[in-house]
Amino acid sequence: MNLRLAHFAWLRRVIISIMRTVYVKGFGMDLHPTCQFSLSARFDKTNPRGVHVGAHTYIAFDAVILTHDLTRGVRLHTRVGSNCFIGARSIILPGVRVGDNAIVGAGAVVNRDVPARTIVAGNPAKVIREDIDAGRYGRLAGADEVQRRQAAENGLD
Amino acid sequence: MNLRLAHFAWLRRVIISIMRTVYVKGFGMDLHPTCQFSLSARFDKTNPRGVHVGAHTYIAFDAVILTHDLTRGVRLHTRVGSNCFIGARSIILPGVRVGDNAIVGAGAVVNRDVPARTIVAGNPAKVIREDIDAGRYGRLAGADEVQRRQAAENGLD
Amino acid sequence: MNLRLAHFAWLRRVIISIMRTVYVKGFGMDLHPTCQFSLSARFDKTNPRGVHVGAHTYIAFDAVILTHDLTRGVRLHTRVGSNCFIGARSIILPGVRVGDNAIVGAGAVVNRDVPARTIVAGNPAKVIREDIDAGRYGRLAGADEVQRRQAAENGLD
Repeated sequence: MNLRLAHFAWLRRVIISIMRTVYVKGFGMDLHPTCQFSLSARFDKTNPRGVHVGAHTYIAFDAVILTHDLTRGVRLHTRVGSNCFIGARSIILPGVRVGDNAIVGAGAVVNRDVPARTIVAGNPAKVIREDIDAGRYGRLAGADEVQRRQAAENGLD
Repeated sequence: MNLRLAHFAWLRRVIISIMRTVYVKGFGMDLHPTCQFSLSARFDKTNPRGVHVGAHTYIAFDAVILTHDLTRGVRLHTRVGSNCFIGARSIILPGVRVGDNAIVGAGAVVNRDVPARTIVAGNPAKVIREDIDAGRYGRLAGADEVQRRQAAENGLD
Repeated sequence: MNLRLAHFAWLRRVIISIMRTVYVKGFGMDLHPTCQFSLSARFDKTNPRGVHVGAHTYIAFDAVILTHDLTRGVRLHTRVGSNCFIGARSIILPGVRVGDNAIVGAGAVVNRDVPARTIVAGNPAKVIREDIDAGRYGRLAGADEVQRRQAAENGLD
């Protein structure tokens, strides 16, 4: 037996498609039809109209996009750009704007705007790399080639 | 259709009331009857009698209050004061005391006592604002007014 | 009534035993038969063969061990040594090696190798103590004695 999540990819795609429809049509979120997200990613349903996610952006598992702050009584627009990768368990705080082609590291807590084409990580998140070359879903240049080579070598699979 | 969590607020209140009773009567936690918490907030059940939460305090989603440390073999009292807001996904480590009218930012990991009337954030958590004017559930002065104005303008809703 | 998780310890052990078999035989992970983990601990199923956990190591609730990075297109081996304690909600990033007898604090995000016999904490994780004396499951010297004394005093129980 050799189980891998990849075997259930088709089912995952169907469920996410349904979820996206619920979020967009039911809650009024602004999720681009091409954005992808983990089923455990969490979009703020207290102010769903403040959630914006751009084209070809990926939101990894347990990531949170917040759009309201009870302590200040505010609802804000939180905007994630296009071609971003929002890492697992990260938190994008209310009102933050993540630029296009940016990567948010796993577990990062993002409390200020993220410039386009940068990688941020940490809590609070800091820029750890600038001028990156990220494409769809935040894939860095050469990632496809690396993945193909690694699969061919079968070193890890 | 226009779904929002607010539509299910009454159901949430009933469930939380039942949960609070289970935590207090069943596990022996010290949760003030007026404290509120998300259903996903996590109180340490290994040492439930070490959990203390004061009046009119709010514990946001996925927040964790720890009261034991396996590496040291200790069980400790962890105390969250009154009128606090404990942010989403934050972790209050065993033995920590959070003062009254304090705010813990989303995703913060709190490893030392939080003075009353401060805001802490980060991992490890640091004081980012002092002498704040927070009332019930950590609401900052003016929050109600801000919220009313925003709702009236209907800018985000 | 006096509920405590301890009352369900036997059931937990059975379930974990089944889970470990699924992870090892089904997914191909390298989990030592003596390692223990919370049911909510998360092992990367995208690259399960990259997950390595040593003998007498404990993985606490909601901890995550990652073994792939979509942005770089890589699958990596992530190795947790023996006699470690991996704290609640911590994240071990892909390719990291955690040395034997090390402790990772709750909520830590570990982005580089952890030397043996150290405690790391924070995001990004930093060494906060060196040359510790940790035994099975990361228990520090004297922890058993502390626990026995505390139980006898019944101060917290």
